[in-house]
Amino acid sequence: MRNFADRLMDAVAQKGTPAIVGIDPRLDLLPAEIAAASAKGARAGLLGAAAMIEAFGAEVIRIVAPLVPAVKVQIAFFEQFGWHGVRAYQRLVRVAQKAGLLVIGDIKRGDIASTAAAYADGHLGRAAIGGRRVRVFDADAVTLNPYLGTDAIAPFLDAAREYGKGLFILVRTSNPSASELQHLSADGKPIYLHVADVVRRWGEGLVGRRGYSSVGAVVGATSREALAEARRALPRAIFLIPGYGAQGATARDLAPGFDAAGQGAVVNSSRGIIFAWTQAPFKEAFGEDRWREAIEAAVKAMRADLAAAVSHRQDYA
Amino acid sequence: MRNFADRLMDAVAQKGTPAIVGIDPRLDLLPAEIAAASAKGARAGLLGAAAMIEAFGAEVIRIVAPLVPAVKVQIAFFEQFGWHGVRAYQRLVRVAQKAGLLVIGDIKRGDIASTAAAYADGHLGRAAIGGRRVRVFDADAVTLNPYLGTDAIAPFLDAAREYGKGLFILVRTSNPSASELQHLSADGKPIYLHVADVVRRWGEGLVGRRGYSSVGAVVGATSREALAEARRALPRAIFLIPGYGAQGATARDLAPGFDAAGQGAVVNSSRGIIFAWTQAPFKEAFGEDRWREAIEAAVKAMRADLAAAVSHRQDYA
Repeated sequence: MRNFADRLMDAVAQKGTPAIVGIDPRLDLLPAEIAAASAKGARAGLLGAAAMIEAFGAEVIRIVAPLVPAVKVQIAFFEQFGWHGVRAYQRLVRVAQKAGLLVIGDIKRGDIASTAAAYADGHLGRAAIGGRRVRVFDADAVTLNPYLGTDAIAPFLDAAREYGKGLFILVRTSNPSASELQHLSADGKPIYLHVADVVRRWGEGLVGRRGYSSVGAVVGATSREALAEARRALPRAIFLIPGYGAQGATARDLAPGFDAAGQGAVVNSSRGIIFAWTQAPFKEAFGEDRWREAIEAAVKAMRADLAAAVSHRQDYA
Repeated sequence: MRNFADRLMDAVAQKGTPAIVGIDPRLDLLPAEIAAASAKGARAGLLGAAAMIEAFGAEVIRIVAPLVPAVKVQIAFFEQFGWHGVRAYQRLVRVAQKAGLLVIGDIKRGDIASTAAAYADGHLGRAAIGGRRVRVFDADAVTLNPYLGTDAIAPFLDAAREYGKGLFILVRTSNPSASELQHLSADGKPIYLHVADVVRRWGEGLVGRRGYSSVGAVVGATSREALAEARRALPRAIFLIPGYGAQGATARDLAPGFDAAGQGAVVNSSRGIIFAWTQAPFKEAFGEDRWREAIEAAVKAMRADLAAAVSHRQDYA
């Protein structure tokens, strides 16, 4: 199988942008048109809710597929509707891949050895059933939590190697309380840089021909200094940078997450894209009736914004 | 709603044991009888696999329900079979509750604010659908990962308060590589004791009439000293202690996890119980034909073993 880092960097080059779109559907923000069409006959139950977010997710994927290399699908927004929601997640992974997108399953799992193997089989590899190897969720990459150490990651490394998949390990998250544990200082450096050390180690055997590893890092864009520091600690890791748009980070804030070549990172926006018609300036320009155009315009604006910031990457090196 | 800590401690008192059973079904270890009966017509697919682990889980629940206060269901072993598996998990939570058991969903989730709220709604609370609040997985408690800090936990605290639910936060896990991050020392104490500090804080508003908080801690039984240390740091937390049996810990090893009254902890065994007929001494005594009796005998042996260790709890105080 082709190395994931190569697949992702090729897709970034082909689409001409490191922008990726987060599929985080919220029932209370769906366009009325989607809600009405999907909910027939199953209006208020889990089945109806799952049908709505699946229909919406599929539309978003159709709109953004020509414009971005990948989508990040947040499984929590599906899992909240039980197995009906998980079925929608499972189907949307396939819809996105058929549309030519790479899919990052934002699952943030982390568990010990044999349990981690079950997650790895289900999300990236194959489930063993009666001597057969059966494809399950089969995302192209997943996000993982490092708190349990190497045991929790090793089965995913095996899946990455065998099936050409990728991992993004939480290094430094962008939420306010990230500091409670991640910023504690041990042996003179913050915990998140200790995590960066193990991430570098995990990624060593999975470097592709473009020089990046299939073991990437989730690094929030809340501090330019911290991004630059993480970049130095992880020269070969692809950064998945959340927080652009709705979470407040600008392209300038996250530029230090790119390397000197202006490469090696993807930037995610979720609400700022998929609910663009609810927010300025797209609300005024399009409104709910033209929500599809608002999504397209928001992706194009993000692409332009990132292109400007990354072309000035040298300023922040 | 009644406080979860009270519900769990009442159930421990009623069943007369802190032993709980982990439902971690593995396809390759199922009794042939279950595999044959469940797989008809869907032999090698995800549907068939999910049917098998659901049937097995339901049988285990039926056998252990009179003997233990709770089961811990490891969602990874279900999720590995996609939405079919998650449907089996969702149904088994209800089967166990109808059998009079409390259910701890071993999900180890952890994500930022609005995403954590989606997980909390789905796993403990209610999903909001068209103005209604709909029950989804509705476990009695879940395990959570602390790496993202308070943001990731707050929505679960709200659900615990509103619906009488419980949380078990990973403090010190029992796997070998737990040391990589959890044992790093910051400000003179290991990270896992910093986690204990935040766990204590999270639990303050959720103490029941028995004096325990609904915010508990997962603390592995790999070191008696560390268990005792965690016990001192978290006097009101109920400990969920994994690793008994197949993972090698004895009742003596985990006794320091109980408080001076011999209370305040539950001890989980998964493989050692549900696959008892594959292991000494139950393999010899029962064999696969009598796998149900082997499970029952293994639970009874665990109950007796824990009773002896906890009655000598004072030795380790």
